[in-house]
Amino acid sequence: MAKKQQNTLEKIVSLAKRRGFIFQSSEIYGGLNGCWDYGPLGVELLRNVKDAWWKFMTYRDDVVGLDASILMHPRVWEASGHVENFTDPMVDCKQCKSRYRLDVLYESYNEKRRKKIADAYAELLAANGGDAEAFKATPREQQMEVSGDALVDDAAVFEYMNEKQLLVCANCGGAGTYTLPRKFNLMFKTFVGPVEDSNAVVFIRPETAQGIFVNFANVSQSTRQKLPFGIAQIGKAFRNEINTKNFLFRTREFEQMEMQFFVKPGSDDQWFETWRDLRLQWFIDLGITPEKLRMKPHAEDKLAHYAKAASDVEYEFPFGWGEIEGIHNRTDYDLSRHQEFSGKSMEYYDQEADEKFVPYVIETSAGASRSLMAFLVDAYEEEELEKETRTVLRFHPRLAPFKAAVLPLVNRDGMDDIGMTLYRDLQKEYKIFYDDSGSVGRRYRRQDEIGTPYCITVDSQTLEDQTVTVRDRDTMDQERVPVDGLRGYLAAKLAG
Amino acid sequence: MAKKQQNTLEKIVSLAKRRGFIFQSSEIYGGLNGCWDYGPLGVELLRNVKDAWWKFMTYRDDVVGLDASILMHPRVWEASGHVENFTDPMVDCKQCKSRYRLDVLYESYNEKRRKKIADAYAELLAANGGDAEAFKATPREQQMEVSGDALVDDAAVFEYMNEKQLLVCANCGGAGTYTLPRKFNLMFKTFVGPVEDSNAVVFIRPETAQGIFVNFANVSQSTRQKLPFGIAQIGKAFRNEINTKNFLFRTREFEQMEMQFFVKPGSDDQWFETWRDLRLQWFIDLGITPEKLRMKPHAEDKLAHYAKAASDVEYEFPFGWGEIEGIHNRTDYDLSRHQEFSGKSMEYYDQEADEKFVPYVIETSAGASRSLMAFLVDAYEEEELEKETRTVLRFHPRLAPFKAAVLPLVNRDGMDDIGMTLYRDLQKEYKIFYDDSGSVGRRYRRQDEIGTPYCITVDSQTLEDQTVTVRDRDTMDQERVPVDGLRGYLAAKLAG
Repeated sequence: MAKKQQNTLEKIVSLAKRRGFIFQSSEIYGGLNGCWDYGPLGVELLRNVKDAWWKFMTYRDDVVGLDASILMHPRVWEASGHVENFTDPMVDCKQCKSRYRLDVLYESYNEKRRKKIADAYAELLAANGGDAEAFKATPREQQMEVSGDALVDDAAVFEYMNEKQLLVCANCGGAGTYTLPRKFNLMFKTFVGPVEDSNAVVFIRPETAQGIFVNFANVSQSTRQKLPFGIAQIGKAFRNEINTKNFLFRTREFEQMEMQFFVKPGSDDQWFETWRDLRLQWFIDLGITPEKLRMKPHAEDKLAHYAKAASDVEYEFPFGWGEIEGIHNRTDYDLSRHQEFSGKSMEYYDQEADEKFVPYVIETSAGASRSLMAFLVDAYEEEELEKETRTVLRFHPRLAPFKAAVLPLVNRDGMDDIGMTLYRDLQKEYKIFYDDSGSVGRRYRRQDEIGTPYCITVDSQTLEDQTVTVRDRDTMDQERVPVDGLRGYLAAKLAG
Repeated sequence: MAKKQQNTLEKIVSLAKRRGFIFQSSEIYGGLNGCWDYGPLGVELLRNVKDAWWKFMTYRDDVVGLDASILMHPRVWEASGHVENFTDPMVDCKQCKSRYRLDVLYESYNEKRRKKIADAYAELLAANGGDAEAFKATPREQQMEVSGDALVDDAAVFEYMNEKQLLVCANCGGAGTYTLPRKFNLMFKTFVGPVEDSNAVVFIRPETAQGIFVNFANVSQSTRQKLPFGIAQIGKAFRNEINTKNFLFRTREFEQMEMQFFVKPGSDDQWFETWRDLRLQWFIDLGITPEKLRMKPHAEDKLAHYAKAASDVEYEFPFGWGEIEGIHNRTDYDLSRHQEFSGKSMEYYDQEADEKFVPYVIETSAGASRSLMAFLVDAYEEEELEKETRTVLRFHPRLAPFKAAVLPLVNRDGMDDIGMTLYRDLQKEYKIFYDDSGSVGRRYRRQDEIGTPYCITVDSQTLEDQTVTVRDRDTMDQERVPVDGLRGYLAAKLAG
């Protein structure tokens, strides 16, 4: 990534720690890789993101909520395909016994070595009747990417490169020393009960979706919802990623906001489009710069085994475009698999048509942590003013950790009292900050930096006419508002 | 427990499933013991409980929020004492290799055997110069309880009972066949990274408290909070309980609502009392029957190793009194231990007094799942009416999953349209149910059963004077309210 953008991410990470948005997990013990803690501001931002999602998704007739447990029966993950397929290829160096994830090993190589691998791949293609010429005609960058992917995906390619001694051990420097890749499952496992054997293995869920599928019958029976309807869930999921990176983007512990929408087969394409559009718009309505968002359809040959169609909402992070939500047409794959593995019917009886079928599923799967990161990065701005640079987080008011700050000027003639009364009154409904120390300019900057949309200043005029100054974070414009109209003022600004 | 009360719990569990409050986790695969899923109504109830707690605890000047990760650095649990002390005694039958938690084994014995154990305990006391006479003078029930506790806590007592062949294997029937008790740690463990060895072991947190302690310095630096102040957190915790029981009461996966309040040593007793009273009142203010609540102080000789004082909020469940929240004076134990184990200072600098010290901590630790269960059990009532029994959940309106139901009578002259418009309008702000099928009496009953406090009926008079009937769940009284005054009506009823 470009140096300037790298700097931007570093600045955001630094601000996030300094002001209490995000801390490294277990930092006093050197941290736990791939885990993060949300500080006092971060937890409010996260709550606001999740609440906005919950309200958008479930305050409607055709979606209900759910909160399934993180530990689930191990058969769930056999049915879902995770035990078999949710794997990364790992290799061991025979010489020094170091273990690597194959894609991480490849990424550790410099450009010179990657070019050699790409050239060897062209030879392999030619020897096997592949279109080596077309491959060679693509740009070098692309050659390296394609051959790197092939190395990871195709054991034959790996074996060829290994024999050619192109795969050097990042630890001992040995070449051609690797074992054949083995599948490494990304699910964390634990043992339930006192005996640690294979019968006691339970997985810590790697996604929230399966908690919805296994409850399909319970939910539809208890709510009497008719198709089409959805089940929405917010919750944590865990993946034993070897290669965590990019702050909150790829972590071992993360939170998902998922909805599975059950439809009649045949209406799935239409619903896929509807939800795809709704979900993109959600991010825009909450203030993300539209030019930094794009909807990226998956190519048909890159679809997951269960998917008929898939499209990602991507945000342009400082390190490049990254998925923040996926919308998938999962067909009847999941319900059919659970029907097969559990022996319980997942069929829906359509009264009107008098027919039974296993519903199709349109999934909207957003990362709460990733979404939060997109909102945070997108809100961050260093604005050049006449005499200084101000750092401002331009959060949508609904997402801002604090909705307003009350700033009484010097304590004269009871300004502090009015300020405190106002603060207590507004706090009944909203998260409000109170700050009576330092110059007002400095207090404004402190609120800008944490994204508080409105600063309410109590000054000498307040004592005369019961109005206060409300200063807008983004425009820095100020207006006088009557004290007794402030709750209504805020309510109007914060209406969803 | 008494049969009638057992029936009550069974009825509540049944209602909870039928109407979509609580489902067994992974039910279609036979369930996962000790884990539960919150259905469409349960998730709303749980959200309301957690929101009420968050607002009560953090919408104040001296408490901020946090959301720490579930996976933490293993050293955290060495410092906290969990690796060493968070254990249950386990025994193996030498004959058939069955493994038991010692207290569960004891609980499996019938009264006759328990009496024998109590008698043997009296002999042991006498032989060792204990006060066997005083022991024999206590009621039989108490003798059995005391000797059962001693069996679990004291290896010498275990050995004596085992040699006397009083400990029969629940599986093979062998007597005196048990190994000495070993400590079994209740923390779930998993492996981070590709290698499953002891270096990779990470624990899944058994409590949320430590996430707060390890962030003490980060939070106080980023927020500049001055003592006394608290850090509040809601999150899941996991314990490998062998003996799960009583619905949501003892589970392997559960949610906590914890606050650690950091104070200057010397002010801790006062703050302990303050928070103890505030927390009891919280349950009362949210509608729990005061007579079903009690504050139970821990006896000094039963305090945890880190505690100077402790008191439990207990609720009288159908199976007896059970803890739903603990208030603890944890002294400087946790921060001092983390200071020792991490080498990072946990001292606070008191500017006014110009002194440094490690703060004391008052903890309020509520179970979100247990609180929800208390609210659910307490709300449940079967009311005898003239012609029928109505089942009603008398939730506090702030906790009720749905705030109101809109029930248009027969579709005549646009009643449905008015109802739907009203529903859509109210739904912008509140969770609202819409039901236009069946007799109005039956619709009322359906709402009573899920605890909806207000039923709004659109009838022919609505067409004439733009008023609707609002029927109160508890009194069943009805009153006419103007359609355009309904939002204000609900807002007033739901104000926190």
